[in-house]
Amino acid sequence: MAMRIETLETPVPVIDLDCVERNLTRMQDYCDRHRLQLRPHIKTHKLPAFARRQIDLGACGITCQKLGEAEIMVEAGFDDILITFPLIGTEKATRLAALARRARIGVALDNPLALETVARAAAASGAPIRVLIEFDSGNRRTGVASVEDALALARSAEAAEGVRFDGLMTYPSNAATAVFIAAARPVFAAAGLAIRTVSGGGTPGAWSAHEIAGLTEVRVGTYIYNDRATVCSGAATLADCALHVHATVVSRPGETRAVIDAGSKTLSSDLLAPDIGTGYGALIDYPEAVIERLSEEHGMIDLSACASRPALGERVRILPNHVCVVTNLHDAVAVSRNGEVAGNWPIAARGPVQAKAIML
Amino acid sequence: MAMRIETLETPVPVIDLDCVERNLTRMQDYCDRHRLQLRPHIKTHKLPAFARRQIDLGACGITCQKLGEAEIMVEAGFDDILITFPLIGTEKATRLAALARRARIGVALDNPLALETVARAAAASGAPIRVLIEFDSGNRRTGVASVEDALALARSAEAAEGVRFDGLMTYPSNAATAVFIAAARPVFAAAGLAIRTVSGGGTPGAWSAHEIAGLTEVRVGTYIYNDRATVCSGAATLADCALHVHATVVSRPGETRAVIDAGSKTLSSDLLAPDIGTGYGALIDYPEAVIERLSEEHGMIDLSACASRPALGERVRILPNHVCVVTNLHDAVAVSRNGEVAGNWPIAARGPVQAKAIML
Repeated sequence: MAMRIETLETPVPVIDLDCVERNLTRMQDYCDRHRLQLRPHIKTHKLPAFARRQIDLGACGITCQKLGEAEIMVEAGFDDILITFPLIGTEKATRLAALARRARIGVALDNPLALETVARAAAASGAPIRVLIEFDSGNRRTGVASVEDALALARSAEAAEGVRFDGLMTYPSNAATAVFIAAARPVFAAAGLAIRTVSGGGTPGAWSAHEIAGLTEVRVGTYIYNDRATVCSGAATLADCALHVHATVVSRPGETRAVIDAGSKTLSSDLLAPDIGTGYGALIDYPEAVIERLSEEHGMIDLSACASRPALGERVRILPNHVCVVTNLHDAVAVSRNGEVAGNWPIAARGPVQAKAIML
Repeated sequence: MAMRIETLETPVPVIDLDCVERNLTRMQDYCDRHRLQLRPHIKTHKLPAFARRQIDLGACGITCQKLGEAEIMVEAGFDDILITFPLIGTEKATRLAALARRARIGVALDNPLALETVARAAAASGAPIRVLIEFDSGNRRTGVASVEDALALARSAEAAEGVRFDGLMTYPSNAATAVFIAAARPVFAAAGLAIRTVSGGGTPGAWSAHEIAGLTEVRVGTYIYNDRATVCSGAATLADCALHVHATVVSRPGETRAVIDAGSKTLSSDLLAPDIGTGYGALIDYPEAVIERLSEEHGMIDLSACASRPALGERVRILPNHVCVVTNLHDAVAVSRNGEVAGNWPIAARGPVQAKAIML
């Protein structure tokens, strides 16, 4: 029997499958048009079914942010995975080796210790592992700062048994990315090192990836759902947002105040940059409402500026600030089509941080 | 074979069992000394084993923040549960009824629709459900604003078949709590309604709960582990903190910068109040370090002020800002004793938001 979304218990993340399909297709078409490889980041959805659809539409492989995600995806049959995080330590090497035996694995890194992990894994597995050198395009996160540092690391990678230097990687893609690539190309060429892949990331900048000379690959995660941050960046419209958290007004302690059953354990505490927007998400049907404060299970909403106001017991739809952390908070998501519930999917790659082996 | 904590893969939350025992005992002793009932909030740990220990030490029952937590706890054999959240809707009533058939259930609420849910559940189960009227002691979250509103709701509760008005509830306990209780007592007495329970909450204020005249019950969650917020409030010392996230320095992109493998999906984005402290947690061994920024799996640390600085590949221990949201992000926690791993416990009541019934 068909079940309407409105009958689902709250709080619940609901994903519009048609909107997902449009988002996936649009990005793949963009990449195809500009001869860019698309390597979707599965950290956003953590769902093998959506990763499969991304591959079927033309993605060259997938991106994972940690071994636990990659393990679930290899188990689900994916055979080309880039891990964009420096892995350090014996246990990581062991797990990486296990993956390399089953799939084509790449790792992005910015330091010798992470390279050592890859080299150990390659030696242990007997399978080659490709390495991308991460450079900092201004995000001040991970990434080497100079072409010289990138070259030194690339040389070490190429010299390591079973490791293959494949190119460069950064997050996010931007103007500085193009500058770094332009500077790196002749230096690497002179050193006899071919830069096959230049992988750039981030949904907001994705639509201008073709303007970055030398970029070969687009890594994007958020584009599958989009969120308030994506909309505020101009990279998507509200109609492109595929995931909403449905919540219920559980208290109306005053004329201008409402409390919903979605707090930081449902929406996360991620905020937008202060100059972009306030609050912990946007109420689709009450655009002037501000989710001004969260506790773990309560969301406190200021309705002062609202022309109309939700009643006690009313259901509201929230566009989250940052969708990648929202799916990570839930065991399952409801998927829908034409307002009807089409399934309840466990977030397969949500939890795993550590190998099963440490289970005592 | 004994396994040292240092051999656990990172990132991993590690709980010191001896510290937990001290924290549980100290709070129970305090409550016993002042003839206050202790009703621990399990939202912090979500672990039946710790809830069992809390009961064994003398707690009168437990507190849950949502039905999913209560369902796990009833399944684990707990028979006295207070749910401190207004439940609204048919599905919630059905689930509440199922609980009421198996355990003594109380619900705190602040509005007629939530009372209707309780009344439906009581009618469906045939088991009495007690109700506490929540009042606002200044937190501006849920809770009625006036004694008159509390009385009206208490009267409705008492009039509903199967529902028993039991008293008042607030969060947090503070000076305003005492004022409200003092004002309510004569008004309720005149109306012929006995206030049996007055339940106050919050770890920071717990140690002065005995100064609040009329309070009968202490609801606390964080005290089992404590966290950076508790330490900053003065309610605990660093030695009282039982849970730390162990992480690894995975990149050192500059002299004064380190990146660890713990981001918002490990530590949450919860901040302290700006006047209390900056950053997303405290590095125990590098107190001057500031975790200035998180992305999902990266934690960016500013080491400018540090006398000594962690090396690439080094393990660091982080005291989280808010421990309740940290355990909620993990499938399991490692427990330890004397530096050795004593187990890996699944966070049993972590995920459940909805009834199993909606699984399609």
